[in-house]
Amino acid sequence: MKNKVNQMKIEKDMTVKQLAKAMSDSGVMGAGRIGKAVEVFEKILEEKQKNKKTGKEDCKLFFGLAGAMVPGGMKEIIHDMLISGTIDVFVTTGANLTHDLIEGLGYNHFKGNADVDDAELNKKGIDRIYDSFMPNNVYEGLEGFFEKIFDELPKEMNIRELLWEIGKRAPKNTILHICYEKQIPIFCPAISDSGIGLMIWGNLEKGKKLKVDVFDDLKEISRLAWDAKKPAVLYVGGGVPKNYIQQAMQFSPNAAAFGIQITTDRVEPGGSSGAELREGISWGKLNKNALFADVRCDATIALPLIWASVKK
Amino acid sequence: MKNKVNQMKIEKDMTVKQLAKAMSDSGVMGAGRIGKAVEVFEKILEEKQKNKKTGKEDCKLFFGLAGAMVPGGMKEIIHDMLISGTIDVFVTTGANLTHDLIEGLGYNHFKGNADVDDAELNKKGIDRIYDSFMPNNVYEGLEGFFEKIFDELPKEMNIRELLWEIGKRAPKNTILHICYEKQIPIFCPAISDSGIGLMIWGNLEKGKKLKVDVFDDLKEISRLAWDAKKPAVLYVGGGVPKNYIQQAMQFSPNAAAFGIQITTDRVEPGGSSGAELREGISWGKLNKNALFADVRCDATIALPLIWASVKK
Amino acid sequence: MKNKVNQMKIEKDMTVKQLAKAMSDSGVMGAGRIGKAVEVFEKILEEKQKNKKTGKEDCKLFFGLAGAMVPGGMKEIIHDMLISGTIDVFVTTGANLTHDLIEGLGYNHFKGNADVDDAELNKKGIDRIYDSFMPNNVYEGLEGFFEKIFDELPKEMNIRELLWEIGKRAPKNTILHICYEKQIPIFCPAISDSGIGLMIWGNLEKGKKLKVDVFDDLKEISRLAWDAKKPAVLYVGGGVPKNYIQQAMQFSPNAAAFGIQITTDRVEPGGSSGAELREGISWGKLNKNALFADVRCDATIALPLIWASVKK
Amino acid sequence: MKNKVNQMKIEKDMTVKQLAKAMSDSGVMGAGRIGKAVEVFEKILEEKQKNKKTGKEDCKLFFGLAGAMVPGGMKEIIHDMLISGTIDVFVTTGANLTHDLIEGLGYNHFKGNADVDDAELNKKGIDRIYDSFMPNNVYEGLEGFFEKIFDELPKEMNIRELLWEIGKRAPKNTILHICYEKQIPIFCPAISDSGIGLMIWGNLEKGKKLKVDVFDDLKEISRLAWDAKKPAVLYVGGGVPKNYIQQAMQFSPNAAAFGIQITTDRVEPGGSSGAELREGISWGKLNKNALFADVRCDATIALPLIWASVKK
Repeated sequence: MKNKVNQMKIEKDMTVKQLAKAMSDSGVMGAGRIGKAVEVFEKILEEKQKNKKTGKEDCKLFFGLAGAMVPGGMKEIIHDMLISGTIDVFVTTGANLTHDLIEGLGYNHFKGNADVDDAELNKKGIDRIYDSFMPNNVYEGLEGFFEKIFDELPKEMNIRELLWEIGKRAPKNTILHICYEKQIPIFCPAISDSGIGLMIWGNLEKGKKLKVDVFDDLKEISRLAWDAKKPAVLYVGGGVPKNYIQQAMQFSPNAAAFGIQITTDRVEPGGSSGAELREGISWGKLNKNALFADVRCDATIALPLIWASVKK
Repeated sequence: MKNKVNQMKIEKDMTVKQLAKAMSDSGVMGAGRIGKAVEVFEKILEEKQKNKKTGKEDCKLFFGLAGAMVPGGMKEIIHDMLISGTIDVFVTTGANLTHDLIEGLGYNHFKGNADVDDAELNKKGIDRIYDSFMPNNVYEGLEGFFEKIFDELPKEMNIRELLWEIGKRAPKNTILHICYEKQIPIFCPAISDSGIGLMIWGNLEKGKKLKVDVFDDLKEISRLAWDAKKPAVLYVGGGVPKNYIQQAMQFSPNAAAFGIQITTDRVEPGGSSGAELREGISWGKLNKNALFADVRCDATIALPLIWASVKK
Repeated sequence: MKNKVNQMKIEKDMTVKQLAKAMSDSGVMGAGRIGKAVEVFEKILEEKQKNKKTGKEDCKLFFGLAGAMVPGGMKEIIHDMLISGTIDVFVTTGANLTHDLIEGLGYNHFKGNADVDDAELNKKGIDRIYDSFMPNNVYEGLEGFFEKIFDELPKEMNIRELLWEIGKRAPKNTILHICYEKQIPIFCPAISDSGIGLMIWGNLEKGKKLKVDVFDDLKEISRLAWDAKKPAVLYVGGGVPKNYIQQAMQFSPNAAAFGIQITTDRVEPGGSSGAELREGISWGKLNKNALFADVRCDATIALPLIWASVKK
Repeated sequence: MKNKVNQMKIEKDMTVKQLAKAMSDSGVMGAGRIGKAVEVFEKILEEKQKNKKTGKEDCKLFFGLAGAMVPGGMKEIIHDMLISGTIDVFVTTGANLTHDLIEGLGYNHFKGNADVDDAELNKKGIDRIYDSFMPNNVYEGLEGFFEKIFDELPKEMNIRELLWEIGKRAPKNTILHICYEKQIPIFCPAISDSGIGLMIWGNLEKGKKLKVDVFDDLKEISRLAWDAKKPAVLYVGGGVPKNYIQQAMQFSPNAAAFGIQITTDRVEPGGSSGAELREGISWGKLNKNALFADVRCDATIALPLIWASVKK
């Protein structure tokens, strides 16, 4: 017992960075974990700065993002993390790519309410995502977009290539376009499980052709993991994105050297989404000497707080 | 206020079915939801009985299963649900298929402990899934199996076809074999995110050929949803399996008429995994007159309890 | 790794006891904890049987009960545990005593719904406890009861004495009466925080006299803990009841030798309600060699399941 | 659907207040609730400013605080809220008062770790509160303090009076002293369930006299609630503190006009700690037109964030 819990002091008009510092100095419970996450993130950014000097890509940040992040107001933060060069490899769900594309096409999500009559919403053509509402007519916009670009797409690809090809043709302020533009490898193993998947299926039903291989880009993420001497992982919301990065870590020579996780899922049921980062050490997914922080918090609270603390 | 909370009475040596009846009669809180789930399940089974008489497949049960269910001791229950004809369409994660195949190949999961030194486990070659342990050498068994069968596989397929092809060659007491044998359509959109995915990738790396399309079986699950006049859904653990069925429901003329969900995920962060079934009404995924039960409970507790109550 | 996860097998019409045995044989995740809890409970009952033979009260079961257990349908189970001699010392919240007394006075809780307009309920005189409804006129019944008995009560007591005195005059099928009748020590440190507290306050406001000391029965629970060579603890729902027993354990020579906890509260925020039983070892509240099970589950599901498994 | 989800924009070195504004503008999921809580808190502070002008105490803020807040680094924030005149009525647990007094007496809590051998900690005399450690010798300090002051205490009091009397004699930088000094009514119904309770009991065991009535201060909190035309409530961590304020609201003519709740407890098990604020409308605890925010988040994260956003 050497380090005391420094009771947090709040100052008028303090910055988020100062708040995170106070949380780190306190060092316990949820606040301590936020503070630790900021420390780990700073360290990752430092390591990435070294990359620039050495010209080697020793530290790469793999970002796995699940959950209703775009309906939940996190879109600009994700764009910012991608545009700023913070993220080197991006893995996400089809849902986030779809909702982001929808906003890129000019639609919006709206402040709603969870205590509503869902049958009423259905009549009005409103889709509910907890307390975020989306007009059902976004699907027309999506259809129009895919009808327009479908014939231009190469006829045979892997999923990562498909995402870049769509991104090339997508509105500028979308995750897909940003990843294409900045050549950030983007993975979405369950892409068929999304609005984008449905749009592609719709075109296939019309007799058009497109073959997208489900295993082919495994070699790409594996190589990215293999080449990084000090890989860093950031998991928000568990799901396939977390697990897909975890398995890349497991079968590469270097397990993750840095880790941050944000989730509200429980540890006790044993699933990957709620599993502690620490568990990854047994599998060789996380280095036993890794610096890591396991934040159990709503991501729409924790992610902005952490990002506002480390943003340069 | 017509129906009073019938305070639960426990009898010595009562059956699980009797316990579930008492929970249903109580009708509130978690117990009430278990009771309701059993009622809904009974109703689904009744509807499926009617199918047999009419020769029509009006009621089909779509089962979406995520979470560490095989390491968590649920394997036999899943097999039983498949073999007994309870499940008509099965959607799951690559992880469950992998862990199930591993057991089929003769390996086991072991009772472990979450309060351990993961670095020690790593040294000993033990992979931890919360308090369930797995020897890391299972990967040799998996490799051997895929090496043996790989050349026999058709060279171009969709994911559902691939799963049946693997199932055809898998040990009898596996989910994959049972689904093949009983011709139960089985979907796993994120199959690349699993040990099975890695094994296939390993063979591709050796220069072998296999093309598996990620979108092609969307037409199959869509048709299955389309053809069912009274589809029923059972979601355990959220994730891609739940969402994949949800979107099939959304774009078919008949939304789900019956629904059961078991999860510990929270509603408030807004993600699909924790979302209330009720939310699906707004999207047209669940019929506004549907009979449904939303059980917030560890699936390794709730699923056996419910299954033991309805098993014929 | 010696003990494999025995995949649970479900049989038609199996008993709850058999289900719990299967959960115990599986031994992992939530089911494993239920199974373990049943094992620990069986062991406690065995030890209590030994008491009878030796004439010594070596093993005493301290039961701390919080949460909306009576509105949640658990009333008969609690009565049963008290009447059967299973519980030696009972600590609970004023809310449970109040709701139980309300039912004893002839009122009921009703099956309701959480997705309602609470302002509408308020107009109709209905109080909501999640999805359990209670007519607001129960307070008239409570008032009548306390008006009738108040003058008979001794004028100066501690809380445990007060509860027995009320119990003496309460309807037979109430926790309070059962505890009085069977002379089970019953503690409720925050009794003023309840409908019963309000009723007493109402009589004091009318100028009647009653002095109830808040610290005096600490000596009684301390002595009960002190005298038990192998105390056992059962905590449902955390709160004051858990903590009050925990501190009795901390300052007695024998920390708890057996422990069962049922809660859905989280470990991470650090509060006593969600704290792992294991944590008590550091404080001397739990013996380092204790047999214990930490069940993370809705109590209205876990408690009936466990009780049905051990009831003689 | 009028108000769109304004995707949050993060700026370098932004203040916490600006972050909370962005969360409010986003308006959905957890972030939206934090944003709403800040808005409600601002409104409460405005109303309290009006009090100063009118000389009437129309808006009073009742603060119910539970959970391991002092071991969790929240001590200074609580002191600050009390000293600044933000809190008009304070209800808390004996544990928080005890841990705060312990720090006031010169002891500390220390940054620890939850993944430890609790038997080892016990040997070393360390008490664990999740990942916060406390040396067990604090009890000697507590004993010394109470031995010194015990004989000076009035011999008969209610709990609120006792807390002020202890506060009068307590170190300056403690909750108890601050409440005494600023004459803030402080309630702790379950005071016997705490280290302070144990210390008093210890002195009673030595034959000293002290009578503390458990019901007497109900009249005080009731009057405080009765007199406030626009009561405001702030609940952190549920438990007795929340419920004690809730019942004061229920039986006063004016239900709460403003409400903020911070908790990680679940809604579904039905207990008061996890219950939605909205539920209080049915009981008449919350005004149907009240402005309120229900934050589901670790309090050590949410409380500093909210306080830093509203602190003047």
